[in-house]
Amino acid sequence: MDHARRLGQVRRRIAKAGLTGLLVTHLIDIRYLVGFTGSSAALAVTRRGARLFTDGRYTAQASQQVKGAQVQIVSGLPAIAAIQWLAAQAGSNSAGFDPTHTTVADFTRLRSGLPSKLRRTFLTPLAAPLVEPLRMIKDEDELAIIQENALIGCRLFDHILTVIRPGIREIEVAAELEYQARLHGAEGMSFETIVASGERSALPHGKASTARLPRKGFVTLDFGIIREGYCSDMTRTVCLGSPRSEERKAYEAVLEAQEAGVASVCGGASCGEVDEAARSVLRKAGMADAFTHSTGHGVGLEIHEQPRLGAGQKTRLQPGMVVTIEPGVYWPGKFGLRIEDMVAVTKTGGQVLTPAPKALIEL
Amino acid sequence: MDHARRLGQVRRRIAKAGLTGLLVTHLIDIRYLVGFTGSSAALAVTRRGARLFTDGRYTAQASQQVKGAQVQIVSGLPAIAAIQWLAAQAGSNSAGFDPTHTTVADFTRLRSGLPSKLRRTFLTPLAAPLVEPLRMIKDEDELAIIQENALIGCRLFDHILTVIRPGIREIEVAAELEYQARLHGAEGMSFETIVASGERSALPHGKASTARLPRKGFVTLDFGIIREGYCSDMTRTVCLGSPRSEERKAYEAVLEAQEAGVASVCGGASCGEVDEAARSVLRKAGMADAFTHSTGHGVGLEIHEQPRLGAGQKTRLQPGMVVTIEPGVYWPGKFGLRIEDMVAVTKTGGQVLTPAPKALIEL
Repeated sequence: MDHARRLGQVRRRIAKAGLTGLLVTHLIDIRYLVGFTGSSAALAVTRRGARLFTDGRYTAQASQQVKGAQVQIVSGLPAIAAIQWLAAQAGSNSAGFDPTHTTVADFTRLRSGLPSKLRRTFLTPLAAPLVEPLRMIKDEDELAIIQENALIGCRLFDHILTVIRPGIREIEVAAELEYQARLHGAEGMSFETIVASGERSALPHGKASTARLPRKGFVTLDFGIIREGYCSDMTRTVCLGSPRSEERKAYEAVLEAQEAGVASVCGGASCGEVDEAARSVLRKAGMADAFTHSTGHGVGLEIHEQPRLGAGQKTRLQPGMVVTIEPGVYWPGKFGLRIEDMVAVTKTGGQVLTPAPKALIEL
Repeated sequence: MDHARRLGQVRRRIAKAGLTGLLVTHLIDIRYLVGFTGSSAALAVTRRGARLFTDGRYTAQASQQVKGAQVQIVSGLPAIAAIQWLAAQAGSNSAGFDPTHTTVADFTRLRSGLPSKLRRTFLTPLAAPLVEPLRMIKDEDELAIIQENALIGCRLFDHILTVIRPGIREIEVAAELEYQARLHGAEGMSFETIVASGERSALPHGKASTARLPRKGFVTLDFGIIREGYCSDMTRTVCLGSPRSEERKAYEAVLEAQEAGVASVCGGASCGEVDEAARSVLRKAGMADAFTHSTGHGVGLEIHEQPRLGAGQKTRLQPGMVVTIEPGVYWPGKFGLRIEDMVAVTKTGGQVLTPAPKALIEL
């Protein structure tokens, strides 16, 4: 991971924003910038230097992991030590902080940790996150991990097809999937695994329950692994028995919408355009009302990160982004389905990272 | 779950604090008060009424789950709708909010959602959390779930003893444990499973790695399940082969400290006294420096909640609290170990919820 480049980008943004320094408290941003994975830390970045503050539990780990920043072990709150260090560096100027990752209580504590003459002016809330936009564009190291994770997901899907059968509990399917994920090196799952069968397939977030898979009908599997800190995300819907004609029709429409979404991905396209590419297919099929969520989201160190691919979103895709394309339709009390790939944005299109079959599988 | 009683307690606290109402945004607190488990919601409680705000994804779920509050589906931010409802109810008085679970960005949004005459005065930061202290005392329904979860943990430990052997990878041990947890009805694990073997046993938080278990030495297993929303937590350290004399000596000291901690639990004891009961045993054994963390913590809907059982903590234990007792010793580069039970506080003592064997197991 090229932490020096990332810190350089942050420094340019600090200078551009007229700030002397930046306080980073979101642990995911800290991991991104300097590689530290501990559960308690704050990072101070100035135009020239950077220092990570953590506690004594992490002395050894910080010295092994942290790149591009000095490390200081503190006994109090790391964020207070960080803001005090910034204040000492920065004289009378100001330091930015991320108001979306700072609680009111922590803000109050930070402020009272400052010398009285700086208390009112030093802490400047960023108008927009400064690190998360950098994380949108994955570098080669990140893409390699994400691609491998997505491929592991496909292998897990392949395996789980041998497990899925009428009568088995949804939670047993999830258990087997997660067991195999662990054996493939996952630290955990990106989110609570969705196994939604029969009528439950109409729940967009139907976490695996103790329900038994029915003899006939859809089973939606939506899952992801975390490995080396990065998330994967994929969804496939399979059918127990032969689909009824309304099920087949819905599946074909969602598949067409999903493929239209994937085909619309390329550097320069707006997120709203990609959403519309998928949504318009379902609109033409008379299923617009059943597609109740947005088309996708960025994936990386967090399972949901920028950009958001929803109606009217103006953010433009850029090469190096990794997004999901996941239209679905849901008819409460009846059935539903969703199909989802991860796609890496390139200059001229999108590279599908989840090459598991999408034609309807009947089991 | 007796949600009416819980809301009644909150109402009394609202009145006592001189507030007209309370805005609850921490999802765990919302689940506790009205039973809703969705991922986006805000709860407004007044001295007379309560209303839950969530979005259209949760219409059906909210109407099924929510007890003791009206439900309102909104298209914008639930918290803004909630504070506006409170403002309309409350006239010119003020509503409390939890500054430890409200970001600066959300606070700014909440404030700008208020009528201008209320903007400066209506939102009152609570000096101390109002709901979390209620959650410390578990009622019978909660104790029944927690007890069952702890017993499932013991069964998992019993099973994993048949799996642990030299040469198997830590992550395979974790995978098997988590697989069985799922089959026992767990929604997930309370935290990333710790399997720390050989030299890694000296890491207090040695998450399962790809390291293979050694032929001889300690293996520390620290894990918990989440089932019906409640967490469990237990630690056992076993030995591959026969322990060396320094290992046996350390194990005996930690076991004695752990049992002294458990024996000191009873309604009225202070958390600091319980910590000291465990810590003093290790001090006498000359191992005080190797016991680098506190003795325990409350467990419930969150894996770490109040009270904290650390040196000098004045909070007094009360019947109905559930806490962990988990002393450990760690010598970096050599070895470490920890033993942990969950204990339910009673008037006269403590009931151990994790009756798995604690005498040293040699495998």
